[in-house]
Amino acid sequence: MRMLGVLGGMGPLASAEFMRALTLETPAERDQDHIPTVLWSDPRVPDRTAARNHGGPDPLPFLLRGIRGLEAAGCGAIAIPCNTAHGWFEAMQAATTLPILHIVDAAAEDLRAQGVTPGSHIGLMGTTATLAMRLYQERLGIECITPSDAMMQSHVMPAVGLVKANRVAEAYAPLAEVARNLHAQGAAAVVLGCTEIPLGIAAGPALPFPVVDTVAALARSAIAWALAERASAV
Amino acid sequence: MRMLGVLGGMGPLASAEFMRALTLETPAERDQDHIPTVLWSDPRVPDRTAARNHGGPDPLPFLLRGIRGLEAAGCGAIAIPCNTAHGWFEAMQAATTLPILHIVDAAAEDLRAQGVTPGSHIGLMGTTATLAMRLYQERLGIECITPSDAMMQSHVMPAVGLVKANRVAEAYAPLAEVARNLHAQGAAAVVLGCTEIPLGIAAGPALPFPVVDTVAALARSAIAWALAERASAV
Repeated sequence: MRMLGVLGGMGPLASAEFMRALTLETPAERDQDHIPTVLWSDPRVPDRTAARNHGGPDPLPFLLRGIRGLEAAGCGAIAIPCNTAHGWFEAMQAATTLPILHIVDAAAEDLRAQGVTPGSHIGLMGTTATLAMRLYQERLGIECITPSDAMMQSHVMPAVGLVKANRVAEAYAPLAEVARNLHAQGAAAVVLGCTEIPLGIAAGPALPFPVVDTVAALARSAIAWALAERASAV
Repeated sequence: MRMLGVLGGMGPLASAEFMRALTLETPAERDQDHIPTVLWSDPRVPDRTAARNHGGPDPLPFLLRGIRGLEAAGCGAIAIPCNTAHGWFEAMQAATTLPILHIVDAAAEDLRAQGVTPGSHIGLMGTTATLAMRLYQERLGIECITPSDAMMQSHVMPAVGLVKANRVAEAYAPLAEVARNLHAQGAAAVVLGCTEIPLGIAAGPALPFPVVDTVAALARSAIAWALAERASAV
């Protein structure tokens, strides 16, 4: 059975939470039932939003170095618990024969599982780069209600930064306010489309409407891959 | 700066918690301040307690395969968030030039930081194999108060199994009972010397006496290594 590869560190707390979700959602009675995984957690990858929006250093060489490391370790597929990094998805997928599990596909599956129908409006929270690249709108094929530019600057981006700086509890209030605002605008569900956002949202009371935790959704996609891999290896 | 290597998966939830502790205890304002890490999480490693106590399959070849993977990834040191695996410490250390951070040394540092003096009695919880190998007693150089054989069989080992089977909340009561029992026998502090045990203890009310969380203690040792590595790389 080939190992699951996780290209992480973007941020590192989201990668730890991905490993936790991967473990807790795997049907297991003992260690040996769990999924062999290599996590390449390299937080030195240049900031994805700065690269896309402000001409910062290109993260792609760092991303490809991680993919090379996961290939060398003998992995059979790659999951990337960072939504913004999926702006480089095509370049990464072109550079490896390993399948990369797309986080937007994982979110789409979670929306279906939660009964959100294709005609519904959904809310989308993410980094300014994820919104500018229209990663969700293009791949889901639906329009998303997104926060205003003012809310992005005053609430979402500072809260993402708080999680990356280990100040997770402080991120709850601004993130919950934005999610409630999107729901009030008619969103049937709100996609937490930056892996720091579900960490902040988990630090306070649960929101009273459906949300998509993209860390957990990607973990479930990875489990589905691993269980199929295990079945084919028998 | 060389990456930190983590030989994990024993169990996988303890490895996820190690990554979480490593992240949350690192002084950081942004992703790039965190510690580059490769986690080799291979839960297929044969059960360490079964190998030592019941003639089960030898885990050493699996442990060495992980070490080879971490060497190939360019790691500069190795942390192993599994106490029982340290029964193979000398064989692993002899097989690699990378320093392996010993979890008992990390626990000793935590005892010092909590003001537990060398003359104190301490309580020790761990797997039957860790107790039988006297990993803590020999390396700490002090006698430890340990649970009775009956308590090991009825409380500690089943609770460790519950954590590995993702039934973490159920592990609290039996583990807390054993810790309280050791404290009542005069232990100034109780070392949670199996990485599943602090996970179970964290699932309920905090215990009213000092405990050593060996997952967090090892993470702090790893952070100390990484900060020194970063300083020497500048």
